[in-house]
Amino acid sequence: MSNTAAIIGGGVIGGGWAARFALNGWNVRVFDPDPEAERKIAEVMSNARRSLPGLTDVALPEAGEISFHDSIQEAVEGASWIQESVPERLDIKHKTFGAIQQACDPDAVIGSSTSGFKPSQLQTGMARPDQIMVAHPFNPVYLLPLVELVPAEGFDGPLIDRAKEILASLGMYALHLKKEIDAHVADRFLEAVWREALWLVKDGIATTEEIDNAIRYGFGIRWAQMGLFETYRVAGGEAGMKHFMAQFGPCLSWPWTKLMDVPEFTDELVDLIAGQSDEQSGHHSIRDLERIRDNNLVTMMRGLKTQDWGAGALLNAQEKIMRAGSDMGAQADDLSADKPVLTAHRTVPLDWTDYNGHMTESRYLHAFADATDRFMEIIGCDAAYISSGGSYFTAETHIRHLDEVHAGTVITITTQVVEGAGKKMHLFHEMRDGERLLATGEHFLLHVSLETRKPSSPSPVIEAALVRFAKGHGALPKPDGLGRAIGAPR
Amino acid sequence: MSNTAAIIGGGVIGGGWAARFALNGWNVRVFDPDPEAERKIAEVMSNARRSLPGLTDVALPEAGEISFHDSIQEAVEGASWIQESVPERLDIKHKTFGAIQQACDPDAVIGSSTSGFKPSQLQTGMARPDQIMVAHPFNPVYLLPLVELVPAEGFDGPLIDRAKEILASLGMYALHLKKEIDAHVADRFLEAVWREALWLVKDGIATTEEIDNAIRYGFGIRWAQMGLFETYRVAGGEAGMKHFMAQFGPCLSWPWTKLMDVPEFTDELVDLIAGQSDEQSGHHSIRDLERIRDNNLVTMMRGLKTQDWGAGALLNAQEKIMRAGSDMGAQADDLSADKPVLTAHRTVPLDWTDYNGHMTESRYLHAFADATDRFMEIIGCDAAYISSGGSYFTAETHIRHLDEVHAGTVITITTQVVEGAGKKMHLFHEMRDGERLLATGEHFLLHVSLETRKPSSPSPVIEAALVRFAKGHGALPKPDGLGRAIGAPR
Repeated sequence: MSNTAAIIGGGVIGGGWAARFALNGWNVRVFDPDPEAERKIAEVMSNARRSLPGLTDVALPEAGEISFHDSIQEAVEGASWIQESVPERLDIKHKTFGAIQQACDPDAVIGSSTSGFKPSQLQTGMARPDQIMVAHPFNPVYLLPLVELVPAEGFDGPLIDRAKEILASLGMYALHLKKEIDAHVADRFLEAVWREALWLVKDGIATTEEIDNAIRYGFGIRWAQMGLFETYRVAGGEAGMKHFMAQFGPCLSWPWTKLMDVPEFTDELVDLIAGQSDEQSGHHSIRDLERIRDNNLVTMMRGLKTQDWGAGALLNAQEKIMRAGSDMGAQADDLSADKPVLTAHRTVPLDWTDYNGHMTESRYLHAFADATDRFMEIIGCDAAYISSGGSYFTAETHIRHLDEVHAGTVITITTQVVEGAGKKMHLFHEMRDGERLLATGEHFLLHVSLETRKPSSPSPVIEAALVRFAKGHGALPKPDGLGRAIGAPR
Repeated sequence: MSNTAAIIGGGVIGGGWAARFALNGWNVRVFDPDPEAERKIAEVMSNARRSLPGLTDVALPEAGEISFHDSIQEAVEGASWIQESVPERLDIKHKTFGAIQQACDPDAVIGSSTSGFKPSQLQTGMARPDQIMVAHPFNPVYLLPLVELVPAEGFDGPLIDRAKEILASLGMYALHLKKEIDAHVADRFLEAVWREALWLVKDGIATTEEIDNAIRYGFGIRWAQMGLFETYRVAGGEAGMKHFMAQFGPCLSWPWTKLMDVPEFTDELVDLIAGQSDEQSGHHSIRDLERIRDNNLVTMMRGLKTQDWGAGALLNAQEKIMRAGSDMGAQADDLSADKPVLTAHRTVPLDWTDYNGHMTESRYLHAFADATDRFMEIIGCDAAYISSGGSYFTAETHIRHLDEVHAGTVITITTQVVEGAGKKMHLFHEMRDGERLLATGEHFLLHVSLETRKPSSPSPVIEAALVRFAKGHGALPKPDGLGRAIGAPR
């Protein structure tokens, strides 16, 4: 039942695609003549495994299998997405697409990771040109959502919709460009900045480290969430975008940048930059830097997720798709009251752990609180009900930390209703890694009016659902640790 | 004893400086002939008050006073930092600096917020040219740490050191440029990207929203933490920066960008962009967008703080400065064992709250866990001791949520030792907003060996310090709620 993706060319980019597909449950078939390809992809996979699964608050499906193949023909067989990430030479790309189209499903998407070529250039001389489109991702492909999707100009068939749908299910964002252009959109910006940066280093105005600091302490962190135009819209204030442009537009013709000119790419310039870069970052290995980068990206993206904004809003959208098809989407009536309810099935994310990779103390309560929210949703106390003015507030919590858990571990929480009637809801959560009990969380909540912030009765529908679970769970054995006080004999 | 800053010109940038200084305990004297200045600065202050104080985990000092003055001379009197943020016209700037230097302390820093002028241009004809330097901040000035600090070429006196020290104490990063250049560093990048973006919109390749998405879902979030060169260093992999440049360098002369040319700034282009921007963001007011932006920035910066990286590492550095001079820096021997110990004095940050601004459930435990860490540090279980292989792990926690608290509230936590001997540490925390009790946290911890992850004895020094507090606190009344079990009668 799994989908299959074919990865043609398995470097950092191809490996990133392989990881993104495999961790989202796709079987992945790789072709790369490089004898090192298997090792390289395993390295990308190891980075991806530690960072991607915890991005969302729902566990990813079981990972697909990655297999290696001796020919393009064999790799593309049965694949519904074929991703080309071979070197940036048009002759190599043409040869690759020719081989792909000889063997692949005519309805499969053929995406190219090219950062520079236009789709019309890629399609020249191909049997089914429209099947080939630019699908340009950004490193690390397993974390960053952007994919520039550029089909042939004027082509807008169901294959495009399918490509977008698949990318969304992988947690990616298809930036669908309707006009083709050299280097698409994002790399044009990168190129402009890179060119300017080379001048600044060459002229001794700033070092590589100073330039990085100028970016990450200033506009970089601004752009990470709003991009360029929305940032300027805010800067323009109430007077609006036109006012902002009137103010800022004229600067364009000032002699601020050296961009009219291209710095000569001498050995001296290369040495200067490589030397400064060593001084700036040489005390970290590349593997360390990759992990630091991924920790930072996961932390910022999950932060934006709580704000439901930017890359974080994309994660919430992906989660909705994932919930719809999982046990995390069930409603009260679908669930038996004869056993504790599954209220969490998620992966411990990187931003929940200390530098040793252990989940930090307060994240146990975070996970239990999310499980409580999920249980509330099950009994009907969902976003719509809460916005109508009622909710449950936690009055008291008791947590027993029984065992440790690392980033990347899939945990489940099951919830038993100890008491549920009127305003009261008394829950007992058990957090597990497989059979291993990690922690218990006992919570006493009261239903409140969000207007008065005082206890009030829940809706009859919610109370009925809660009572059904309380009654069913009342027949279950009393869980170990229930009602324990700290300092009481064990 | 407070320091005084003078703010000359009180728009969005001047207001941002005023807020940054005032919230860090400086008295601020404003001169701006605009009759709306007081209202405008109050608006910036209101945004700054909700976002800045919670950035660090230590409360800021008491805010300074902002006063408004009728003349530059009156405003600059007694100020040790004078910040000019008047319109970008050299004649106006010269007039302003002339008036400032007539009345100010010759040892005061005079910073200019200019985004384009070089210091030599600003200094022309001034009485004490070296006193004037570019100090170019980034909007929102109260949150973003970057300041481009550009003194006259060759000038490197103690005034520069003083300026850097003051900026660091405000949580800012001085990018000290030793060569002057039009538009400094960061704005040259902004200009290059802006120019390219205008072309893309004008040519109908992408809309403002698509461009913003291309930035924030891809390189924007990458740059927010590592900037340009470190990102490329990672992309280059083990082969190193030279390899990366050999691969990517030649693209520079490809015809990827339109940057050799300047788009004509017609009304049509302005309308096109303003129209697309309305479509993209028009459903949010500017005030909403400012708050969304600040929520996002705070969330990402605090995320990076947990990773001790980029803008987050700057926050940790600022916190160290703040702790050194506060009650949060005291050691065991300085503290009386006759009363509960102050273990937290902090502001509830934006990223700890729900969309209504109430602190979320798990952040109560976060605050208590930080208070436990602080208490451990006080008794000698600090970073050095932990890296030697011992620490305390929490086995059991009981929290009572007694009252709600909003973002921006300064909270304190006091800690009473219930039991402390051998491997055991039993703490009772009380969290307050002033006198108002918000929550209690009862925690039972065991000292462990980080190697075996099993209980072990603490060092004699730690045990002695713990026993001293246990003994002293044993004479205090038993706190309300101690030893409570959920479900027990109240």
